[in-house]
Amino acid sequence: MNDMIPAYDLPAANRRFLLASRPAGTPTGANFTLETADIPAVGEGQFLVRNLYLSADPVQRGWSVNPAVTTPGQPMHALAVGVVVESRVDDVMQGDVVYGFFGWQDYALATRADLLSHIGQPRVRLSAYAGALGMPGVTAWLALNDLAPPSAGQTVLVSTAAGAVGSIVGQIAHRAGARVIGLTGSDAKVARCVNDFGYAVAYNYKTIDLPAALANAAPSGFNTYFDNTGGYILDMAVRAMARYGRIIQCGTAATSSWSPPPTGLRQEREILTRVLSWNGFYIFDHIARFGEAINRLTDLALNGGLAFDEDIDHGIETAPAALESLFMGTNSGKKLIFIGQG
Amino acid sequence: MNDMIPAYDLPAANRRFLLASRPAGTPTGANFTLETADIPAVGEGQFLVRNLYLSADPVQRGWSVNPAVTTPGQPMHALAVGVVVESRVDDVMQGDVVYGFFGWQDYALATRADLLSHIGQPRVRLSAYAGALGMPGVTAWLALNDLAPPSAGQTVLVSTAAGAVGSIVGQIAHRAGARVIGLTGSDAKVARCVNDFGYAVAYNYKTIDLPAALANAAPSGFNTYFDNTGGYILDMAVRAMARYGRIIQCGTAATSSWSPPPTGLRQEREILTRVLSWNGFYIFDHIARFGEAINRLTDLALNGGLAFDEDIDHGIETAPAALESLFMGTNSGKKLIFIGQG
Repeated sequence: MNDMIPAYDLPAANRRFLLASRPAGTPTGANFTLETADIPAVGEGQFLVRNLYLSADPVQRGWSVNPAVTTPGQPMHALAVGVVVESRVDDVMQGDVVYGFFGWQDYALATRADLLSHIGQPRVRLSAYAGALGMPGVTAWLALNDLAPPSAGQTVLVSTAAGAVGSIVGQIAHRAGARVIGLTGSDAKVARCVNDFGYAVAYNYKTIDLPAALANAAPSGFNTYFDNTGGYILDMAVRAMARYGRIIQCGTAATSSWSPPPTGLRQEREILTRVLSWNGFYIFDHIARFGEAINRLTDLALNGGLAFDEDIDHGIETAPAALESLFMGTNSGKKLIFIGQG
Repeated sequence: MNDMIPAYDLPAANRRFLLASRPAGTPTGANFTLETADIPAVGEGQFLVRNLYLSADPVQRGWSVNPAVTTPGQPMHALAVGVVVESRVDDVMQGDVVYGFFGWQDYALATRADLLSHIGQPRVRLSAYAGALGMPGVTAWLALNDLAPPSAGQTVLVSTAAGAVGSIVGQIAHRAGARVIGLTGSDAKVARCVNDFGYAVAYNYKTIDLPAALANAAPSGFNTYFDNTGGYILDMAVRAMARYGRIIQCGTAATSSWSPPPTGLRQEREILTRVLSWNGFYIFDHIARFGEAINRLTDLALNGGLAFDEDIDHGIETAPAALESLFMGTNSGKKLIFIGQG
């Protein structure tokens, strides 16, 4: 028994949260229905996963209204970490830890295409593989290093600075020698940013004069802005960029609905006169690179060089509220739901 | 006598347009004062240029309100093509053709720092060196090749498609094998785009349903958008981009004033979900590369591979109206003012 894997049971039925209806804005409990189904039989080329940690990720808001990803009446699309309990796939072994698109349910019938990371025997506590060593950590690593490699002398701004992605961005940029400034939503998170996540300065954006704080934090402007929020924070950050600055668009958490289309300050003059480069990053176009990124992040974690917070709820029935908490900013760190015992 | 140089006189005094006041939006005649001054004496390290073609460029609207560039009471900052009439600079010879920041005046006292291009003896008609072989042509060449090198299989959208920059972008992209779609402001310019500037299709944006036209022109989206306008056209173009499309921000002609800050559709979700790259381009950061770009464009022109329009007014007194015409869209091609005889 690998002591990174928590104790878990093997229930006799499969509880699962179906997407009942597409949300108008942020998904709530009303959009999901919990039901109990039989444990599916494993066919050739398939394996059965006992999900232990369900992941609540901001991207699920988009998934919940995207017909290419979700279908009402089917289990909610979600990432999860679990243990293989039966396999009819070569080299996916019973007892292996896996991370992938396993949905909000006790058991997932999966194929190789559903895997994001085949962990095997974990070297770090299991929950980390859905956070700092999972999609959020890999997003931070690849987006920052691909689009704006940090270096000494640079000033980097990060929104949702204490979040699952932002906290890793802060540490990567800091280790590369950059001066990192964070924006986050509570004084407790400000302290965590400065004490543990590599930030030179962090601000609670809810209680400050944002343009003044940005001007004060970087009188010569920001070289990089890693944006997870969009909205007003983005508008002010664009106007605080240095010439030839780079903006990484990794999330748009500040806006709950895009219909009707929201408006904001026009950006083209800032793009032109500051000679900015504003790039989107879509993590699921980089699945082939997960293994290498996870290895690098795991090395950091094993050497004590990677702090990360987890905010773990218990019981599958808490999943909708866990997702909703991301958009209220009430989570602290990577939001997970442990469903291994219950 | 080089027959590419038009006949010109050498007046006994220096007429010059001073910036009288900073415009609130688009500069008009009320913002300038024409005066007559002595011809300046040439000091060591200086040369005297007889300006022949003054250039009217959209960037002058920004210059006219930028204290780092213009000072009320001084001659209006402008590019011009002229002939050296006296020189105390090594290798800048009397009779050489030069292109640079010579201002709205008959004679400019210049130094090497004011030169954008030391043409010497021209191989193409002189006016071209302020347009297709000057700042607009070099902008098209460098911005497109640096930020979104065109190739076969791509679809490229260009705003102000028949303009001094856009007409060159169309031809470069077309010669590289891309399918080029143009947006311009009159049916006559639409015809010019399709017949001479390499566009597969062009639209008069004033008379069409823009989103429908863009969807029809590129059902799979645009790989590149070369934007000279900003505003509504930009907002619609962003929503017609293909995944991993590139937007080049080269001008913002559609917006006449940025105070108070104008609003538009929020762009961050499009940047994220289409995984776009939106980049500003500032030509005056690339002065060292002008010579090479002009050589390439000159080769194209001498081989008959470069169509370009010029819209030439006569007499220095027409300069303010020439500039204003750029923002009314009533010019057709590169706007110049010939002041060599008057």
